[in-house]
Amino acid sequence: MELWFSEPHTKNVKLSIRVNRQLYSGESEFQRIDVFESPEFGRFLTLDGYMMLTEKDEFIYHEMMVHVPLAVHPNVKNVLVIGAGDGGVVRELVRYDTIEHIDMVEIDPMVVQVCREYLPFTTTGLDDPRVSIRYEDGLKFVRRCEDAYDLIIVDSTDPFGPGEGLFTKEFYGSCYKALHADGIMVNQHESPFYDEDVAAMQRTHARIVQSFPLSRLYQAHIPTYPSGHWLFGFASKKYHPLRDLREAEWNARRLSCRYYTTTLHKGAFYLPAYVEEMLVDVEPEC
Amino acid sequence: MELWFSEPHTKNVKLSIRVNRQLYSGESEFQRIDVFESPEFGRFLTLDGYMMLTEKDEFIYHEMMVHVPLAVHPNVKNVLVIGAGDGGVVRELVRYDTIEHIDMVEIDPMVVQVCREYLPFTTTGLDDPRVSIRYEDGLKFVRRCEDAYDLIIVDSTDPFGPGEGLFTKEFYGSCYKALHADGIMVNQHESPFYDEDVAAMQRTHARIVQSFPLSRLYQAHIPTYPSGHWLFGFASKKYHPLRDLREAEWNARRLSCRYYTTTLHKGAFYLPAYVEEMLVDVEPEC
Repeated sequence: MELWFSEPHTKNVKLSIRVNRQLYSGESEFQRIDVFESPEFGRFLTLDGYMMLTEKDEFIYHEMMVHVPLAVHPNVKNVLVIGAGDGGVVRELVRYDTIEHIDMVEIDPMVVQVCREYLPFTTTGLDDPRVSIRYEDGLKFVRRCEDAYDLIIVDSTDPFGPGEGLFTKEFYGSCYKALHADGIMVNQHESPFYDEDVAAMQRTHARIVQSFPLSRLYQAHIPTYPSGHWLFGFASKKYHPLRDLREAEWNARRLSCRYYTTTLHKGAFYLPAYVEEMLVDVEPEC
Repeated sequence: MELWFSEPHTKNVKLSIRVNRQLYSGESEFQRIDVFESPEFGRFLTLDGYMMLTEKDEFIYHEMMVHVPLAVHPNVKNVLVIGAGDGGVVRELVRYDTIEHIDMVEIDPMVVQVCREYLPFTTTGLDDPRVSIRYEDGLKFVRRCEDAYDLIIVDSTDPFGPGEGLFTKEFYGSCYKALHADGIMVNQHESPFYDEDVAAMQRTHARIVQSFPLSRLYQAHIPTYPSGHWLFGFASKKYHPLRDLREAEWNARRLSCRYYTTTLHKGAFYLPAYVEEMLVDVEPEC
């Protein structure tokens, strides 16, 4: 039998993955949720037909969301994670024994249930006693917070559908307010390659720049995301992602990673010329 | 009408590109050659059905093949280019007025003819008076050379079919001999992501390590190549790709690039942990 999952990356290009079988398909209040098993990527999760993670390459995304800010901020104790229902971000966070509390705010409880059942390799951190899972809209949750967190990680879906509010100027303003005076916000920031993604990426960056004094993008190779060239935002009140990188200190933790190293950390911020150019109009010097 | 070109990246994953029309299809003595026009990537060239280049992202590959060694070697005068029938590598090379001569050795004259006609954006350098095009087997050509070049660029197809000889230990040994005492060899080095590519990448690296005292890999985001994470080999008799990077000197040339910058140059050598690990057994310290 030939069974293929295809995701259109634009209306003119698509990536197709051979599927052994569909493990789950359901519709929550917010979105359609599917889990597949594939020979190339192992299990993978899609929301509304968009690839969220695969067993083979999820380590890249999750390591880059977590270890980059943790190697810069000297003292992360309280973390807010928005979205991230698959648990991958929390799994990386709970590896730090210096973190005291993690609030994970996910709008869709069904995503967490499905991942616990079908993707246990991402949910291992969710039962850590330091983790509180709150099922509500991240936009509304963060509005109520003030000077509460050292780090906010925004692990959202794309800037349409349920995740749309997590790409607004109001949301970034609320995150700024929710952070301590030396806080950092990291978010998934789309791709610089296809025109539609570029527009979203520039708009997002422009909005973050309005809220945070320092805003930089960094990149990773994520083969199952559109173009494979994915960006993350590093927005900060105080620390610079390179000048304040605490390389020796992070390496002394002896956390073994499969993608992240403190050397790679630096290279992740060295963007191609065409990406730098896309940011020129929206990024102030710092 | 729906017309799609699909390339299997493994037998379980494929990338598909919508096509407006096929501009050329022919069979040379060595391979099948096709040119298509697409809404997303502009024109693109395939050899035996494998993607060689697209109008939209070829700049990444060609800039990374050429400007990385040119920013390290202080005095490149004579260059040997093997393969590269599309002309993209030569187009970047002829931007350096300090280069005196370029031998381009391409086995298949039909590739050059087809590219001249259908992909004129890559062939602009081929008529430069410093360029000699030789239609012969690169493996045989380089056997006859001794102490003749400052730089060899191996822009081959994959390690099977007509390009197979360009991945042998004998070939790398000949390249070593063909280079001056401070020469550099750069080659396309496959991807670290899918198992089949990994095997080819490790085998290639092991063979280069046996011929050159210094061998390093660097990476780029090339969306239309398998996984989008592509590697290049930097093999050198003397210069280190980072310690000998002549940043100010290269920037003083004022060559405007769309992907390459001397900052990105450094990051390109900062590989993910899992790629470093793949090289541990074959890469000696240096």
